Amino acid sequence: MMEEKQGAALYFRVKENLLALIKSGVYTLGDKLPTESELCQEYEVSRTTIRQALQQLEIEGYIQRVQGKGTFVSKPKIREPITRNIRTFVEQMKDLGLSAHSKVLELIVIPADNTLAETLHIEEKDPVIKLIRLRYAEDEPLQYVTSYLPWRVAPGLVNEDCSGSLFDLLKSKYDVKIYRSVEAIEPILIEESISYLLEVPAGSPAFSLKSLTYNSEEQPIEYSYGIVRGDRFKFTMERYVND
Amino acid sequence: MMEEKQGAALYFRVKENLLALIKSGVYTLGDKLPTESELCQEYEVSRTTIRQALQQLEIEGYIQRVQGKGTFVSKPKIREPITRNIRTFVEQMKDLGLSAHSKVLELIVIPADNTLAETLHIEEKDPVIKLIRLRYAEDEPLQYVTSYLPWRVAPGLVNEDCSGSLFDLLKSKYDVKIYRSVEAIEPILIEESISYLLEVPAGSPAFSLKSLTYNSEEQPIEYSYGIVRGDRFKFTMERYVND
Repeated sequence: MMEEKQGAALYFRVKENLLALIKSGVYTLGDKLPTESELCQEYEVSRTTIRQALQQLEIEGYIQRVQGKGTFVSKPKIREPITRNIRTFVEQMKDLGLSAHSKVLELIVIPADNTLAETLHIEEKDPVIKLIRLRYAEDEPLQYVTSYLPWRVAPGLVNEDCSGSLFDLLKSKYDVKIYRSVEAIEPILIEESISYLLEVPAGSPAFSLKSLTYNSEEQPIEYSYGIVRGDRFKFTMERYVND
Repeated sequence: MMEEKQGAALYFRVKENLLALIKSGVYTLGDKLPTESELCQEYEVSRTTIRQALQQLEIEGYIQRVQGKGTFVSKPKIREPITRNIRTFVEQMKDLGLSAHSKVLELIVIPADNTLAETLHIEEKDPVIKLIRLRYAEDEPLQYVTSYLPWRVAPGLVNEDCSGSLFDLLKSKYDVKIYRSVEAIEPILIEESISYLLEVPAGSPAFSLKSLTYNSEEQPIEYSYGIVRGDRFKFTMERYVND
Protein backbone atom coordinates (compact mmCIF):
# COMPACT_ATOMS: atom_id res chain seq x y z
CA MET A 1 0.00 0.00 0.00
CA MET A 2 2.91 2.37 0.53
CA GLU A 3 5.66 2.90 -2.03
CA GLU A 4 9.30 2.76 -1.01
CA LYS A 5 10.47 6.35 -0.64
CA GLN A 6 13.40 7.85 1.17
CA GLY A 7 13.74 6.54 4.73
CA ALA A 8 12.82 9.58 6.79
CA ALA A 9 9.62 10.23 4.86
CA LEU A 10 8.59 6.61 4.76
CA TYR A 11 8.74 5.88 8.47
CA PHE A 12 6.75 9.06 9.02
CA ARG A 13 4.00 7.84 6.72
CA VAL A 14 3.87 4.43 8.43
CA LYS A 15 3.71 6.23 11.77
CA GLU A 16 0.94 8.58 10.66
CA ASN A 17 -0.98 5.65 9.21
CA LEU A 18 -0.78 3.64 12.43
CA LEU A 19 -1.72 6.78 14.35
CA ALA A 20 -4.80 7.24 12.16
CA LEU A 21 -5.82 3.66 12.97
CA ILE A 22 -5.42 4.40 16.68
CA LYS A 23 -7.28 7.70 16.46
CA SER A 24 -10.11 6.24 14.42
CA GLY A 25 -10.58 3.51 17.00
CA VAL A 26 -9.44 0.54 14.89
CA TYR A 27 -6.95 0.01 17.71
CA THR A 28 -8.10 1.21 21.12
CA LEU A 29 -6.59 1.55 24.61
CA GLY A 30 -4.78 -1.61 25.63
CA ASP A 31 -5.04 -3.30 22.20
CA LYS A 32 -2.01 -5.18 20.99
CA LEU A 33 -0.61 -3.99 17.64
CA PRO A 34 0.57 -6.49 14.99
CA THR A 35 4.16 -7.72 15.40
CA GLU A 36 7.07 -6.01 13.63
CA SER A 37 7.18 -8.77 11.00
CA GLU A 38 3.45 -8.51 10.38
CA LEU A 39 3.78 -4.74 9.99
CA CYS A 40 6.73 -5.18 7.59
CA GLN A 41 4.55 -7.37 5.39
CA GLU A 42 1.50 -5.15 5.63
CA TYR A 43 3.33 -1.93 4.75
CA GLU A 44 5.92 -3.60 2.49
CA VAL A 45 8.77 -1.76 4.19
CA SER A 46 11.90 -2.80 6.06
CA ARG A 47 12.02 -3.69 9.73
CA THR A 48 14.15 -0.58 10.33
CA THR A 49 11.36 1.61 8.98
CA ILE A 50 8.75 -0.17 11.16
CA ARG A 51 10.98 0.24 14.20
CA GLN A 52 11.47 3.95 13.51
CA ALA A 53 7.71 4.40 13.17
CA LEU A 54 7.01 2.48 16.41
CA GLN A 55 9.78 4.33 18.24
CA GLN A 56 8.27 7.66 17.25
CA LEU A 57 4.78 6.57 18.32
CA GLU A 58 6.23 5.44 21.63
CA ILE A 59 8.11 8.72 22.17
CA GLU A 60 4.89 10.57 21.49
CA GLY A 61 3.08 8.42 24.03
CA TYR A 62 0.60 6.66 21.73
CA ILE A 63 1.96 3.17 22.23
CA GLN A 64 3.95 1.28 24.80
CA ARG A 65 6.35 -1.52 23.97
CA VAL A 66 6.57 -4.20 26.63
CA GLN A 67 9.67 -6.43 26.47
CA GLY A 68 8.73 -9.94 25.33
CA LYS A 69 4.99 -9.16 25.23
CA GLY A 70 4.47 -6.80 22.28
CA THR A 71 3.26 -3.32 21.48
CA PHE A 72 0.13 -1.91 23.09
CA VAL A 73 -1.99 1.19 22.55
CA SER A 74 -1.57 3.68 25.41
CA LYS A 75 -3.80 6.47 26.57
CA PRO A 76 -4.14 9.47 24.24
CA LYS A 77 -2.29 12.63 25.21
CA ILE A 78 -3.95 15.37 27.17
CA ARG A 79 -4.43 18.41 24.94
CA GLU A 80 -3.92 21.73 26.57
CA PRO A 81 -5.41 24.43 24.39
CA ILE A 82 -3.35 27.60 24.53
CA THR A 83 -5.90 30.28 25.22
CA ARG A 84 -5.66 33.94 26.08
CA ASN A 85 -7.14 33.15 29.49
CA ILE A 86 -5.30 31.91 32.54
CA ARG A 87 -6.76 28.55 33.50
CA THR A 88 -5.67 26.59 36.55
CA PHE A 89 -4.52 22.99 36.24
CA VAL A 90 -7.63 21.91 38.17
CA GLU A 91 -9.89 23.74 35.69
CA GLN A 92 -8.04 22.31 32.68
CA MET A 93 -8.38 18.75 33.94
CA LYS A 94 -12.02 19.31 34.85
CA ASP A 95 -12.68 20.33 31.22
CA LEU A 96 -11.37 16.90 30.24
CA GLY A 97 -13.49 15.12 32.82
CA LEU A 98 -10.46 14.31 34.97
CA SER A 99 -10.14 14.95 38.69
CA ALA A 100 -6.95 16.76 39.66
CA HIS A 101 -4.96 17.03 42.84
CA SER A 102 -1.42 17.81 43.92
CA LYS A 103 0.99 16.16 46.28
CA VAL A 104 3.01 18.77 48.17
CA LEU A 105 6.67 17.67 48.19
CA GLU A 106 8.11 20.78 49.82
CA LEU A 107 6.65 23.93 51.38
CA ILE A 108 9.22 26.13 53.09
CA VAL A 109 10.42 29.72 53.46
CA ILE A 110 13.79 30.61 51.96
CA PRO A 111 15.74 33.86 51.64
CA ALA A 112 15.69 35.35 48.13
CA ASP A 113 18.98 35.07 46.26
CA ASN A 114 19.73 37.68 43.61
CA THR A 115 17.93 35.81 40.79
CA LEU A 116 14.73 35.40 42.80
CA ALA A 117 14.91 38.95 44.12
CA GLU A 118 15.19 40.30 40.60
CA THR A 119 12.42 38.05 39.26
CA LEU A 120 9.96 38.76 42.08
CA HIS A 121 10.81 42.49 42.46
CA ILE A 122 11.90 42.11 46.09
CA GLU A 123 15.15 42.63 48.01
CA GLU A 124 17.84 39.97 48.36
CA LYS A 125 17.31 37.90 51.53
CA ASP A 126 13.60 38.83 51.67
CA PRO A 127 11.49 35.80 52.61
CA VAL A 128 10.15 33.72 49.73
CA ILE A 129 7.71 30.83 49.91
CA LYS A 130 8.94 27.83 47.98
CA LEU A 131 6.40 25.19 47.05
CA ILE A 132 7.15 22.00 45.13
CA ARG A 133 4.15 20.03 43.94
CA LEU A 134 3.58 16.91 41.93
CA ARG A 135 0.35 17.39 39.98
CA TYR A 136 -1.87 14.43 39.26
CA ALA A 137 -4.82 13.83 36.96
CA GLU A 138 -6.69 10.90 38.46
CA ASP A 139 -3.81 8.77 39.78
CA GLU A 140 -1.25 9.71 37.15
CA PRO A 141 1.60 12.13 37.96
CA LEU A 142 1.77 14.65 35.10
CA GLN A 143 3.69 17.74 36.18
CA TYR A 144 6.48 18.55 38.64
CA VAL A 145 6.14 22.22 39.55
CA THR A 146 8.32 24.44 41.71
CA SER A 147 6.75 27.77 42.72
CA TYR A 148 8.26 30.82 44.39
CA LEU A 149 6.05 33.50 45.96
CA PRO A 150 7.08 36.66 47.81
CA TRP A 151 6.23 36.11 51.49
CA ARG A 152 4.05 39.25 51.67
CA VAL A 153 1.75 37.87 48.92
CA ALA A 154 0.46 35.09 51.18
CA PRO A 155 1.95 35.34 54.67
CA GLY A 156 0.52 32.14 56.19
CA LEU A 157 0.79 29.94 53.12
CA VAL A 158 3.33 27.54 54.61
CA ASN A 159 0.66 26.38 57.05
CA GLU A 160 -2.05 25.89 54.44
CA ASP A 161 -3.16 22.80 52.55
CA CYS A 162 -1.71 23.43 49.08
CA SER A 163 -2.95 20.22 47.45
CA GLY A 164 -5.73 22.02 45.55
CA SER A 165 -5.53 25.00 43.20
CA LEU A 166 -2.92 27.50 44.43
CA PHE A 167 -4.55 30.40 42.58
CA ASP A 168 -7.95 29.61 44.09
CA LEU A 169 -6.36 29.57 47.55
CA LEU A 170 -4.55 32.87 46.92
CA LYS A 171 -7.79 34.44 45.80
CA SER A 172 -10.06 33.16 48.54
CA LYS A 173 -7.70 33.35 51.53
CA TYR A 174 -5.31 36.18 50.68
CA ASP A 175 -7.44 38.34 48.41
CA VAL A 176 -4.77 38.15 45.68
CA LYS A 177 -6.01 39.54 42.38
CA ILE A 178 -4.25 37.55 39.69
CA TYR A 179 -4.18 39.47 36.44
CA ARG A 180 -1.58 38.39 33.91
CA SER A 181 1.01 35.69 33.31
CA VAL A 182 3.99 35.50 30.98
CA GLU A 183 4.97 31.98 30.04
CA ALA A 184 7.67 30.21 28.05
CA ILE A 185 7.56 26.66 26.71
CA GLU A 186 10.75 24.76 25.92
CA PRO A 187 11.51 21.11 25.13
CA ILE A 188 13.78 19.38 27.64
CA LEU A 189 14.89 15.90 28.64
CA ILE A 190 13.64 14.71 32.02
CA GLU A 191 16.56 14.23 34.40
CA GLU A 192 16.82 11.21 36.63
CA SER A 193 15.84 12.79 39.97
CA ILE A 194 12.51 13.98 38.51
CA SER A 195 11.87 11.03 36.22
CA TYR A 196 11.04 8.57 38.97
CA LEU A 197 8.51 11.01 40.46
CA LEU A 198 6.80 11.44 37.08
CA GLU A 199 7.05 7.68 36.46
CA VAL A 200 8.80 8.00 33.09
CA PRO A 201 12.29 6.92 31.95
CA ALA A 202 15.11 9.42 32.54
CA GLY A 203 15.84 11.28 29.30
CA SER A 204 12.21 11.28 28.12
CA PRO A 205 11.18 14.37 26.15
CA ALA A 206 9.15 16.86 28.18
CA PHE A 207 8.05 20.48 28.23
CA SER A 208 9.55 22.97 30.61
CA LEU A 209 6.96 25.62 31.39
CA LYS A 210 8.18 28.78 33.08
CA SER A 211 5.57 31.20 34.24
CA LEU A 212 5.64 34.58 35.92
CA THR A 213 2.27 35.76 37.20
CA TYR A 214 1.41 39.35 38.12
CA ASN A 215 -1.43 41.09 39.90
CA SER A 216 -3.18 44.09 38.38
CA GLU A 217 -0.57 46.42 39.97
CA GLU A 218 2.09 44.58 37.93
CA GLN A 219 3.60 43.08 41.09
CA PRO A 220 4.95 39.55 40.64
CA ILE A 221 2.81 37.04 42.56
CA GLU A 222 4.44 33.77 41.59
CA TYR A 223 7.32 32.46 39.54
CA SER A 224 6.94 28.82 38.65
CA TYR A 225 9.02 26.26 36.81
CA GLY A 226 7.07 23.22 35.67
CA ILE A 227 8.24 19.99 34.08
CA VAL A 228 5.38 18.57 32.02
CA ARG A 229 5.36 15.00 30.73
CA GLY A 230 5.70 15.02 26.94
CA ASP A 231 4.22 11.56 26.56
CA ARG A 232 0.99 12.73 28.18
CA PHE A 233 0.67 16.37 27.11
CA LYS A 234 0.50 18.42 23.99
CA PHE A 235 -0.27 22.09 23.55
CA THR A 236 -2.77 23.00 20.87
CA MET A 237 -3.69 26.33 19.40
CA GLU A 238 -5.83 27.90 16.77
CA ARG A 239 -4.64 30.90 14.79
CA TYR A 240 -6.30 33.16 12.28
CA VAL A 241 -5.08 35.44 9.52
CA ASN A 242 -4.52 38.99 10.55
CA ASP A 243 -7.34 40.97 8.98
CA MET B 1 26.27 32.41 48.58
CA MET B 2 23.94 29.44 48.18
CA GLU B 3 23.06 27.07 51.02
CA GLU B 4 23.22 23.31 50.50
CA LYS B 5 19.67 22.16 49.87
CA GLN B 6 18.34 19.03 48.28
CA GLY B 7 20.10 18.19 45.01
CA ALA B 8 17.39 18.81 42.44
CA ALA B 9 16.51 22.23 43.80
CA LEU B 10 20.11 23.27 44.26
CA TYR B 11 21.33 22.60 40.74
CA PHE B 12 18.28 24.50 39.51
CA ARG B 13 19.24 27.54 41.57
CA VAL B 14 22.84 27.44 40.31
CA LYS B 15 21.51 27.15 36.80
CA GLU B 16 19.07 30.04 37.18
CA ASN B 17 21.82 32.13 38.74
CA LEU B 18 24.22 31.50 35.87
CA LEU B 19 21.39 32.17 33.45
CA ALA B 20 20.71 35.52 35.12
CA LEU B 21 24.38 36.41 34.68
CA ILE B 22 24.14 35.52 30.99
CA LYS B 23 20.87 37.39 30.51
CA SER B 24 22.10 40.48 32.33
CA GLY B 25 25.16 40.58 30.10
CA VAL B 26 27.79 39.74 32.73
CA TYR B 27 28.65 36.89 30.36
CA THR B 28 27.92 37.57 26.71
CA LEU B 29 28.02 35.60 23.44
CA GLY B 30 31.25 33.67 23.10
CA ASP B 31 32.48 34.41 26.66
CA LYS B 32 34.14 31.56 28.51
CA LEU B 33 32.48 30.63 31.80
CA PRO B 34 34.59 29.82 34.91
CA THR B 35 35.79 26.20 35.13
CA GLU B 36 33.81 23.55 37.03
CA SER B 37 36.20 23.80 40.00
CA GLU B 38 35.92 27.58 40.07
CA LEU B 39 32.12 27.33 40.00
CA CYS B 40 32.20 24.71 42.81
CA GLN B 41 34.12 27.16 44.98
CA GLU B 42 32.00 30.14 44.04
CA TYR B 43 28.66 28.45 44.73
CA GLU B 44 29.97 26.19 47.52
CA VAL B 45 28.33 23.15 45.99
CA SER B 46 29.53 19.79 44.70
CA ARG B 47 30.91 19.17 41.23
CA THR B 48 27.84 16.99 40.50
CA THR B 49 25.56 19.95 41.15
CA ILE B 50 27.64 22.23 38.91
CA ARG B 51 27.61 19.60 36.17
CA GLN B 52 23.83 19.22 36.42
CA ALA B 53 23.41 23.00 36.18
CA LEU B 54 25.75 23.25 33.17
CA GLN B 55 24.11 20.27 31.50
CA GLN B 56 20.70 21.90 31.83
CA LEU B 57 22.01 25.20 30.45
CA GLU B 58 23.54 23.31 27.55
CA ILE B 59 20.32 21.39 26.84
CA GLU B 60 18.45 24.68 26.83
CA GLY B 61 20.95 26.13 24.38
CA TYR B 62 22.44 28.89 26.53
CA ILE B 63 25.94 27.49 26.70
CA GLN B 64 28.11 25.16 24.69
CA ARG B 65 30.73 22.89 26.21
CA VAL B 66 33.73 22.29 24.00
CA GLN B 67 35.85 19.24 24.87
CA GLY B 68 39.19 20.33 26.32
CA LYS B 69 38.49 24.03 25.81
CA GLY B 70 35.79 24.97 28.32
CA THR B 71 32.25 26.28 28.48
CA PHE B 72 31.11 29.16 26.29
CA VAL B 73 28.02 31.32 26.12
CA SER B 74 25.94 30.52 23.02
CA LYS B 75 23.37 32.59 21.22
CA PRO B 76 20.09 33.23 23.07
CA LYS B 77 17.05 31.28 21.93
CA ILE B 78 14.64 32.68 19.40
CA ARG B 79 11.35 33.47 21.12
CA GLU B 80 8.27 32.74 19.13
CA PRO B 81 5.34 34.53 20.72
CA ILE B 82 2.17 32.49 20.41
CA THR B 83 -0.34 34.94 19.05
CA ARG B 84 -3.86 34.60 17.76
CA ASN B 85 -2.57 35.61 14.32
CA ILE B 86 -0.98 33.38 11.72
CA ARG B 87 2.49 34.67 11.05
CA THR B 88 4.83 33.19 8.47
CA PHE B 89 8.34 32.07 9.41
CA VAL B 90 9.72 34.88 7.25
CA GLU B 91 7.63 37.46 9.14
CA GLN B 92 8.61 36.03 12.53
CA MET B 93 12.31 36.16 11.73
CA LYS B 94 11.95 39.67 10.28
CA ASP B 95 10.48 40.81 13.62
CA LEU B 96 13.71 39.62 15.21
CA GLY B 97 15.87 41.37 12.64
CA LEU B 98 16.89 38.09 11.03
CA SER B 99 16.75 37.27 7.35
CA ALA B 100 15.02 33.99 6.57
CA HIS B 101 15.13 31.60 3.67
CA SER B 102 14.42 27.94 2.96
CA LYS B 103 16.31 25.23 1.18
CA VAL B 104 13.93 22.98 -0.76
CA LEU B 105 14.93 19.35 -0.13
CA GLU B 106 12.04 17.71 -1.96
CA LEU B 107 9.16 18.96 -4.12
CA ILE B 108 7.15 16.19 -5.74
CA VAL B 109 3.62 14.97 -6.42
CA ILE B 110 2.45 11.83 -4.62
CA PRO B 111 -0.85 9.96 -4.48
CA ALA B 112 -2.80 10.49 -1.25
CA ASP B 113 -2.85 7.48 1.06
CA ASN B 114 -5.80 7.12 3.40
CA THR B 115 -4.28 9.27 6.18
CA LEU B 116 -3.52 12.16 3.84
CA ALA B 117 -6.88 11.81 2.09
CA GLU B 118 -8.68 12.04 5.42
CA THR B 119 -6.57 14.95 6.65
CA LEU B 120 -6.83 17.00 3.46
CA HIS B 121 -10.49 16.12 2.70
CA ILE B 122 -9.67 14.55 -0.66
CA GLU B 123 -9.99 11.08 -2.18
CA GLU B 124 -7.39 8.36 -1.82
CA LYS B 125 -4.90 8.43 -4.72
CA ASP B 126 -5.71 12.09 -5.48
CA PRO B 127 -2.53 14.05 -6.27
CA VAL B 128 -0.83 15.75 -3.34
CA ILE B 129 2.11 18.14 -3.45
CA LYS B 130 4.81 17.18 -0.99
CA LEU B 131 7.35 19.80 -0.06
CA ILE B 132 10.24 19.30 2.35
CA ARG B 133 12.10 22.43 3.40
CA LEU B 134 14.93 23.26 5.71
CA ARG B 135 14.26 26.70 7.13
CA TYR B 136 17.16 29.00 7.95
CA ALA B 137 17.51 32.23 9.89
CA GLU B 138 20.66 33.87 8.58
CA ASP B 139 22.87 30.83 7.95
CA GLU B 140 21.54 28.64 10.74
CA PRO B 141 19.18 25.70 9.98
CA LEU B 142 16.29 25.95 12.48
CA GLN B 143 13.34 23.91 11.25
CA TYR B 144 12.80 20.82 9.10
CA VAL B 145 9.30 21.06 7.66
CA THR B 146 7.33 18.61 5.54
CA SER B 147 4.21 20.06 3.90
CA TYR B 148 1.38 18.34 2.04
CA LEU B 149 -1.01 20.33 -0.14
CA PRO B 150 -3.91 19.08 -2.27
CA TRP B 151 -2.87 19.41 -5.90
CA ARG B 152 -5.90 21.56 -6.79
CA VAL B 153 -4.83 24.20 -4.24
CA ALA B 154 -1.74 25.15 -6.24
CA PRO B 155 -1.57 23.12 -9.48
CA GLY B 156 1.82 24.38 -10.73
CA LEU B 157 3.60 24.55 -7.39
CA VAL B 158 6.11 21.82 -8.20
CA ASN B 159 7.62 24.14 -10.80
CA GLU B 160 7.82 27.18 -8.52
CA ASP B 161 10.66 28.51 -6.41
CA CYS B 162 9.55 27.55 -2.88
CA SER B 163 12.53 28.98 -1.03
CA GLY B 164 10.56 32.00 0.25
CA SER B 165 7.29 32.12 2.18
CA LEU B 166 4.92 29.38 0.98
CA PHE B 167 1.85 31.26 2.18
CA ASP B 168 2.90 34.43 0.34
CA LEU B 169 3.38 32.38 -2.82
CA LEU B 170 -0.01 30.68 -2.41
CA LYS B 171 -1.64 34.06 -1.95
CA SER B 172 0.04 35.93 -4.79
CA LYS B 173 0.20 33.20 -7.43
CA TYR B 174 -2.77 30.94 -6.67
CA ASP B 175 -5.16 33.37 -5.01
CA VAL B 176 -5.42 31.09 -1.95
CA LYS B 177 -7.22 32.78 0.94
CA ILE B 178 -5.65 31.39 4.09
CA TYR B 179 -7.98 31.78 7.03
CA ARG B 180 -7.30 29.53 10.01
CA SER B 181 -4.75 27.03 11.30
CA VAL B 182 -4.97 24.40 14.00
CA GLU B 183 -1.61 23.53 15.53
CA ALA B 184 -0.19 21.11 18.07
CA ILE B 185 3.15 21.38 19.85
CA GLU B 186 4.86 18.33 21.31
CA PRO B 187 8.34 17.67 22.69
CA ILE B 188 10.34 15.07 20.75
CA LEU B 189 13.90 13.82 20.39
CA ILE B 190 15.56 14.60 17.07
CA GLU B 191 16.28 11.40 15.17
CA GLU B 192 19.55 10.81 13.43
CA SER B 193 18.45 11.33 9.82
CA ILE B 194 17.16 14.83 10.64
CA SER B 195 19.80 15.77 13.22
CA TYR B 196 22.62 16.20 10.73
CA LEU B 197 20.46 18.51 8.61
CA LEU B 198 19.63 20.66 11.64
CA GLU B 199 23.26 20.49 12.78
CA VAL B 200 22.46 19.21 16.29
CA PRO B 201 23.28 15.91 18.01
CA ALA B 202 20.82 13.04 17.48
CA GLY B 203 18.52 12.77 20.50
CA SER B 204 18.46 16.53 21.17
CA PRO B 205 15.16 17.81 22.54
CA ALA B 206 13.02 19.57 19.94
CA PHE B 207 9.46 20.67 19.26
CA SER B 208 7.28 18.89 16.79
CA LEU B 209 4.82 21.36 15.32
CA LYS B 210 1.89 19.93 13.40
CA SER B 211 -0.30 22.37 11.60
CA LEU B 212 -3.42 22.09 9.49
CA THR B 213 -4.34 25.26 7.63
CA TYR B 214 -7.76 26.01 6.14
CA ASN B 215 -9.19 28.59 3.77
CA SER B 216 -12.33 30.55 4.62
CA GLU B 217 -14.47 27.75 3.11
CA GLU B 218 -12.98 25.37 5.71
CA GLN B 219 -11.11 23.46 3.01
CA PRO B 220 -7.70 22.16 4.09
CA ILE B 221 -4.91 24.04 2.27
CA GLU B 222 -1.84 22.52 3.88
CA TYR B 223 -0.87 19.93 6.46
CA SER B 224 2.62 20.41 7.76
CA TYR B 225 4.87 18.59 10.18
CA GLY B 226 7.77 20.66 11.46
CA ILE B 227 10.73 19.71 13.61
CA VAL B 228 11.93 22.80 15.45
CA ARG B 229 15.30 22.99 17.20
CA GLY B 230 14.74 23.15 20.95
CA ASP B 231 18.16 24.64 21.60
CA ARG B 232 17.29 27.63 19.42
CA PHE B 233 13.55 28.12 19.94
CA LYS B 234 11.10 28.72 22.69
CA PHE B 235 7.44 29.55 22.52
CA THR B 236 6.23 32.38 24.71
CA MET B 237 2.74 33.51 25.58
CA GLU B 238 0.91 36.00 27.68
CA ARG B 239 -2.35 35.09 29.38
CA TYR B 240 -4.90 37.10 31.33
CA VAL B 241 -7.55 36.26 33.89
CA ASN B 242 -10.95 35.59 32.47
CA ASP B 243 -13.03 38.61 33.37
